Amino acid sequence: MWSRCSLGALRTHRYPYLLTPAFAQTVRFSSGTTTTMDAVKTRTVDTTERLAKLRELLKKPENNVKVFIVPSEDQHFSEYPAHSDERRAFISGFNGSAGCAIITLRDAFLFTDGRYFLQASEQLDSNWKLMKQGLPDVPTWQEFLSKHLEQGTRIGIDPTLISAVDAESLQKSLEPRGSELVSLQQNPVDIVWGKDRPPCPHNSVFPLDVKYAGESFQDKLQRLREEITKKNAVASVVTLLDEVAWLFNLRGTDIDFNPVFFAYAVVTPTKAILFMNDAQVQQSIKTFLGSDVEIRPYESFIPSLRQLTATLGASKDKPMLLGDKTSLAVVEAIGQENAVLIPSPVAAMKAIKNETEIEGFRKCHIRDGAALIRYFAWLEEQLNKGVELNESQAAAKLEEFRSELDLFRGLSFTTISSTGPNAAVIHYSPDPDDCAIIRKDQVYLCDSGGQYLDGTTDVTRTLHFGTPTNEEKRAFTRVLQGHISIDTAVFPTGTSGYIIDSFARRALWQEGWDYRHGTGHGVGHFLNVHEGPHGIGTRIAYNSTPLKAGMTVSNEPGYYADGRYGIRTESVVIVREADTPNNFGNGYLCFEHVTMCPIQTKLIDFSVLTAQEKEWLNSYHAETLEKVGPLLRNDLRALQWLERECSPV
Amino acid sequence: MWSRCSLGALRTHRYPYLLTPAFAQTVRFSSGTTTTMDAVKTRTVDTTERLAKLRELLKKPENNVKVFIVPSEDQHFSEYPAHSDERRAFISGFNGSAGCAIITLRDAFLFTDGRYFLQASEQLDSNWKLMKQGLPDVPTWQEFLSKHLEQGTRIGIDPTLISAVDAESLQKSLEPRGSELVSLQQNPVDIVWGKDRPPCPHNSVFPLDVKYAGESFQDKLQRLREEITKKNAVASVVTLLDEVAWLFNLRGTDIDFNPVFFAYAVVTPTKAILFMNDAQVQQSIKTFLGSDVEIRPYESFIPSLRQLTATLGASKDKPMLLGDKTSLAVVEAIGQENAVLIPSPVAAMKAIKNETEIEGFRKCHIRDGAALIRYFAWLEEQLNKGVELNESQAAAKLEEFRSELDLFRGLSFTTISSTGPNAAVIHYSPDPDDCAIIRKDQVYLCDSGGQYLDGTTDVTRTLHFGTPTNEEKRAFTRVLQGHISIDTAVFPTGTSGYIIDSFARRALWQEGWDYRHGTGHGVGHFLNVHEGPHGIGTRIAYNSTPLKAGMTVSNEPGYYADGRYGIRTESVVIVREADTPNNFGNGYLCFEHVTMCPIQTKLIDFSVLTAQEKEWLNSYHAETLEKVGPLLRNDLRALQWLERECSPV
Repeated sequence: MWSRCSLGALRTHRYPYLLTPAFAQTVRFSSGTTTTMDAVKTRTVDTTERLAKLRELLKKPENNVKVFIVPSEDQHFSEYPAHSDERRAFISGFNGSAGCAIITLRDAFLFTDGRYFLQASEQLDSNWKLMKQGLPDVPTWQEFLSKHLEQGTRIGIDPTLISAVDAESLQKSLEPRGSELVSLQQNPVDIVWGKDRPPCPHNSVFPLDVKYAGESFQDKLQRLREEITKKNAVASVVTLLDEVAWLFNLRGTDIDFNPVFFAYAVVTPTKAILFMNDAQVQQSIKTFLGSDVEIRPYESFIPSLRQLTATLGASKDKPMLLGDKTSLAVVEAIGQENAVLIPSPVAAMKAIKNETEIEGFRKCHIRDGAALIRYFAWLEEQLNKGVELNESQAAAKLEEFRSELDLFRGLSFTTISSTGPNAAVIHYSPDPDDCAIIRKDQVYLCDSGGQYLDGTTDVTRTLHFGTPTNEEKRAFTRVLQGHISIDTAVFPTGTSGYIIDSFARRALWQEGWDYRHGTGHGVGHFLNVHEGPHGIGTRIAYNSTPLKAGMTVSNEPGYYADGRYGIRTESVVIVREADTPNNFGNGYLCFEHVTMCPIQTKLIDFSVLTAQEKEWLNSYHAETLEKVGPLLRNDLRALQWLERECSPV
Repeated sequence: MWSRCSLGALRTHRYPYLLTPAFAQTVRFSSGTTTTMDAVKTRTVDTTERLAKLRELLKKPENNVKVFIVPSEDQHFSEYPAHSDERRAFISGFNGSAGCAIITLRDAFLFTDGRYFLQASEQLDSNWKLMKQGLPDVPTWQEFLSKHLEQGTRIGIDPTLISAVDAESLQKSLEPRGSELVSLQQNPVDIVWGKDRPPCPHNSVFPLDVKYAGESFQDKLQRLREEITKKNAVASVVTLLDEVAWLFNLRGTDIDFNPVFFAYAVVTPTKAILFMNDAQVQQSIKTFLGSDVEIRPYESFIPSLRQLTATLGASKDKPMLLGDKTSLAVVEAIGQENAVLIPSPVAAMKAIKNETEIEGFRKCHIRDGAALIRYFAWLEEQLNKGVELNESQAAAKLEEFRSELDLFRGLSFTTISSTGPNAAVIHYSPDPDDCAIIRKDQVYLCDSGGQYLDGTTDVTRTLHFGTPTNEEKRAFTRVLQGHISIDTAVFPTGTSGYIIDSFARRALWQEGWDYRHGTGHGVGHFLNVHEGPHGIGTRIAYNSTPLKAGMTVSNEPGYYADGRYGIRTESVVIVREADTPNNFGNGYLCFEHVTMCPIQTKLIDFSVLTAQEKEWLNSYHAETLEKVGPLLRNDLRALQWLERECSPV
């Protein structure tokens, strides 16, 4: 699944958040959380009173700002915020995944992009002006602040909700008008929200056994300490939830789909301090971490940072290392002169999977493939029998099959189960109360994934249960050729995903087709399904991170015919050293695919497939049959379906 | 032919200059200029006296500098400097194409790269220290200036020989040590050189008929004026020789291989001033330019700039437009506050060929192909007869065939005629007095091109006149697959050559092979064989210039096995609008190849070629036979060779 684009300068990926608590009090994930979505989506909230209260707070002497920014982000820049962090939804009434609210003393503006124009216009009350970013002459919220406000405006922000990097560039753009960004001590939205604000989740936290993680947290800390020494720093501050979870081999269920928990960490050459909610510090966690890690309360993070900066003697020459997604609040606590913002060393370490993690990826993808194959076989039978099934009911069946698998811990994102025109909506997710019936005469696209103790999956297959049109077949084949071109690519050490992205598009371009999303994102190991810093795509940022052996990345070209059909073929691949006949330069890399699920040959236009591509397909199907077949002993329907779908072409 | 890399931050492309005057007093080019190369190459010049005189000048009060930089550049950043501009060769004795001399009051350093370590060590006398750039712990000349000199050193430079952009970044790097770059009024090397300095060439200049240029110079001026108005500027200053030549539809023979003449131009909304040597202003030029262009002496350029800046009222808000390769001297004359440095608008206009130029490209490439085919047929016969021929003798025969062609005006660069291991030297050019005998049992690589009134050619073919090894065939085929992949690429509007470069390398990468040069450079229309701003390659700068319909670009992947053999297959292609079945987005582009010369099928390893690639090859050969065949009526040997080489596979 390709991550949703973010709004303007916000560089985090996000999914539409879910309004019901997803995983409360259980180690097991569940995505059965969309049931109330529809009702909420169309409900307009009266924000008159909220806005009036907020404006009173803005005018108070301790704030004294004329404008307040309410972004979508939480303090960890999580892809999915917890409900307690849905401040923008609370203040505006608009609960789409991407948007930024700007409230002045007189007006209120909600900035969002084309995916949410309709939803926002339905949800916003008359207090709000919808700013349709992307339309001509509509500024981004950053441009609005720098160009459409009076000279010398004081603009309030909660410094925990904006990255220091974004804050700096925003501040720079404000300078020509003499405006300034003002960090407020307490978020006024939280004050207005008051007792109605949901509590911050603190679900149970559990250690991930080294038999899955492949490396003890002590060894990871040791490697991080080497980085700290190499960079001549006094400490590394870890603020992203998946980085903390990875570093300490801990997992949680505070955030939908992402097995993480609310925490920060500071690592010095001799100490490791983990900041987490007291309620989550069970005895098992204390025992697991032992004397190697000091646990402090989550709330004490910012004051502790101030104190640590002094104790450690952080300075320009001996700085604290901060990842480039660190919040302004953290930088302010440490002092800009004592910190250095760099691409996160933990992200770089986490991106390269060790052999245990890689083996886990292989295994969980085989199991995950079995669930998917059972599902497709079942779905085909239902449709052939004439059973009426909507997209959401079908997705629930897929989740049921997945939930029977060993080591399953929930979905890795909301299943995209989409028929016909819905498949052309790149980030479609079916509304259980109002979604389409899956039709035999339409393309069906299913993008889904699971969380397992031994890895995370993300797979898309597009199928047709009737007779596809020639155009659908041509599009499917061109997408498949791009997929094969990435799968079989060999490239020199040092090559980034920016450079090889064109391999995935070449065949589509021949037809005058393309797709407006990336080709591949990193995939966490029993962690976030989207992780960086690498990726395959047209974002120039990807050019800064060469692909390295051990990195996981999705391979998911697609094509979307608006209002008609959509096609995507996605597998997860792992970067490996290539055994090339020669070695000009400094070594070559290639991909190993771990996703095991047939690619529907019925949808192939063989007139454009090369002999080599046909060979690849047969070999992939032989491998899939061999690896997944044995898991389907108790589901004859699935086994027969698999055997048929894997027949050589 | 791929352009030679430049040294350090110098971004001009250059070829080894030739020591004898090449085209003096003739409109016809000749490359028969390498006869004295060998002798000169190994001669050591005693620079003691020159250096002593130079140091006296540096100490004079009007200079008062402790260091002086002598780069390779001329004041127009030409690829090939005139002999009068070979200051670095004069002062150091080293005459390779790339290098920078740094002279302090005590020491003298010559910085060059791996291609010239041997030649430089042979040519430099004991006054000089050779700085082998690229070796570990050897600084670039810029690093040397910023890190290896005393605090507060005044460093002299001739501001006409360094671009303002490079000067600024150099100045910035000097600041931490408080050193500064000082523009000297007169180049002290020129004073030392004195009467021995060759005169600046002023060979004849001639108009290029609009039947070849396709657009009158008045219309070009008009388009440039529209750019000036659009940019809210008062004038555009044109300092590169090929830009001046293109803008005024004039050509000259002052520089080897490049049909240009020494000139500058300033264009305002109402005026066009051409600065050129009086001796070159013949009546035909005056008549051609008429009242649309004012001609002023070349020497008056800098004083005129000062005066024009005042007259035109240039300012920050109404600046003079300067191309990004403009010299520091020009910026100093105008005043930095009155100028804006941008990618040259003339370069952008020149890069997109009009339909007349494109038709000229097609035609001259067919004629050029005929000469090349005659040559290869002749060469094969000679070798089969057992005639002993060295690389240079063979190249001379090729020039002879070219010189018989209509509209021929000389070579576009020194012919690379190389056998076996010499073919692995990417920028090899045979020394007539000491070069290899072409062997039937070795790969033969020939990279050559011509200047014609209707276009410029640049073509590489690699052949084997005996029995190639399996490895040579595999390498040839992988290179060919990259060549075909570029030739057949379709890509969306807005795509740069940086993005599609990987298409050319993919097949080689599969073998663990690659090449350390770009894949394609722009080709001028009866102008420099290397032109920008676009290109296909791994230089990130190419990512700033999308390929556009009408641009020419070479398609020249290669593979080089050091000490054994080298392979390159190069054709010139023109970017055209693609007629794709669909149009997702904003249009698609493709390439039209214009080079017409067979690709040797004997060298193909058919086990890795796809059916589609075979089809491409047969179609290319059928096209070549059809287009060039009729030109070979009087050379039966060549026609038979062509027919055999174009037989379908």
